[in-house]
Amino acid sequence: MERITSVQNPRIKQWAKLHVRKERESTGCFLLEGMHLVEEACRSDVPLEAILVEEDTVLPEWLKAYQQTHQNMELLWVTRPVLEKVSETKTPQGMLAIAKMRTTLPDALPDDCLLLVLDKLQDPGNVGTLIRTADAAGFDGVVIGEGSADLYNSKTIRSTMGSLFHLPIWRENVVDFIHRVKDEHPGLRVIGTSLKESKAYTDVMYAGSVALVIGNEGSGISDDVLALTDQNVIIPIHGRAESLNAAIAGSVLMYEAIRQRIK
Amino acid sequence: MERITSVQNPRIKQWAKLHVRKERESTGCFLLEGMHLVEEACRSDVPLEAILVEEDTVLPEWLKAYQQTHQNMELLWVTRPVLEKVSETKTPQGMLAIAKMRTTLPDALPDDCLLLVLDKLQDPGNVGTLIRTADAAGFDGVVIGEGSADLYNSKTIRSTMGSLFHLPIWRENVVDFIHRVKDEHPGLRVIGTSLKESKAYTDVMYAGSVALVIGNEGSGISDDVLALTDQNVIIPIHGRAESLNAAIAGSVLMYEAIRQRIK
Repeated sequence: MERITSVQNPRIKQWAKLHVRKERESTGCFLLEGMHLVEEACRSDVPLEAILVEEDTVLPEWLKAYQQTHQNMELLWVTRPVLEKVSETKTPQGMLAIAKMRTTLPDALPDDCLLLVLDKLQDPGNVGTLIRTADAAGFDGVVIGEGSADLYNSKTIRSTMGSLFHLPIWRENVVDFIHRVKDEHPGLRVIGTSLKESKAYTDVMYAGSVALVIGNEGSGISDDVLALTDQNVIIPIHGRAESLNAAIAGSVLMYEAIRQRIK
Repeated sequence: MERITSVQNPRIKQWAKLHVRKERESTGCFLLEGMHLVEEACRSDVPLEAILVEEDTVLPEWLKAYQQTHQNMELLWVTRPVLEKVSETKTPQGMLAIAKMRTTLPDALPDDCLLLVLDKLQDPGNVGTLIRTADAAGFDGVVIGEGSADLYNSKTIRSTMGSLFHLPIWRENVVDFIHRVKDEHPGLRVIGTSLKESKAYTDVMYAGSVALVIGNEGSGISDDVLALTDQNVIIPIHGRAESLNAAIAGSVLMYEAIRQRIK
């Protein structure tokens, strides 16, 4: 097993550049920090270019198993300074992986699918937390619309707690996505959170194929997306708060949809 | 109106110490950063020791109104470096206040009260977001148990978006609090989130006086608090996520309680 001890190593310098979105997009690679995320990726059979392990770490069984079935993946011992050079956190845990973005996503969606659509949601923590809740609630996929926080930002990834590997995630223009899915599922109902012509979220039925749209933290859903919603809903505010956090609003909606469908 | 231009000014140096919890506790003061939070405090009649305004800022009407009814509050012009010295954020907005912690809280709770209890919840963002949701859902108060993130931490305050001024917030030992409220409201039902002997959260009735307990992000509710719960609930996980974020779980529960009580 190769050992890298210099922070000047050209590959280490190359990987450290993955902190920047542009570099991630041009290489199709992103970083996974910490043992939990690397484990989730291995268990979900995500393609990994390399795993960097701090010296003296005991290799877990799932890592050995992944290595045996992925001969092209490199397993490298690194020193603490090398790990810190590649990591985005100040105190990295003892493991880090360079992962490849998935390019293949399911063509067809199941009948009565449930989708979460994020329209220009800007906070990486909100995007990651909503992916985690969508996974927990059993949704069939998440769309991260253009202008949203990057899925492969380290904070987004951390907030997903590994759920980004558990369900399909599309990164595309929201209007294009809705048109595409409606072509295939003409019965798809697009339900958006908006004050305009809206009903209380508990007075709406979430049966059939449904896409729930969550808008930007400050300005809500874009006008061009709002023009495509079949129903707008609002979560009532009973106290003096002006609004709910976007990740909270989306999660309350998702669990209401699930509550109705399961009972 | 006095003007402070030196970061060496003893009062400025004193206020900058309020970044540290110990200093906040010994002085009973805390910082409010940004115009939105200062406005929320003024509109909620929170006692302020001083408001620091960056030079050349136009004074809003609500600030002038607060000043007229609070003659002891000092309004000070400060330079950008002085504002940065006191602020915890790198790029402070043009206004900052030194607020006093409230020491008086309502003795009696309303009949059929709804309370949120946080037991050793450690992330300031989670604590703040849950206070914001509790306010939005119309809860009657929040208990921040010992061992939780500090209410007056700047990240907690920011996440509340001002809701910390909208409802009573107790900071005390959770076991003591529950005993105290049960003495007064013998019918109080304590509902905790736990895997032990639990029902699905949608199969439980939230009528009457209810305290919802949210536990630590990693280890859940403490054993001594769990011994006091009348009912444990679980939010079902349908996908492959291991768990929900604590602020999400608490918010889904609060809105389910409200949904049942309002319909």
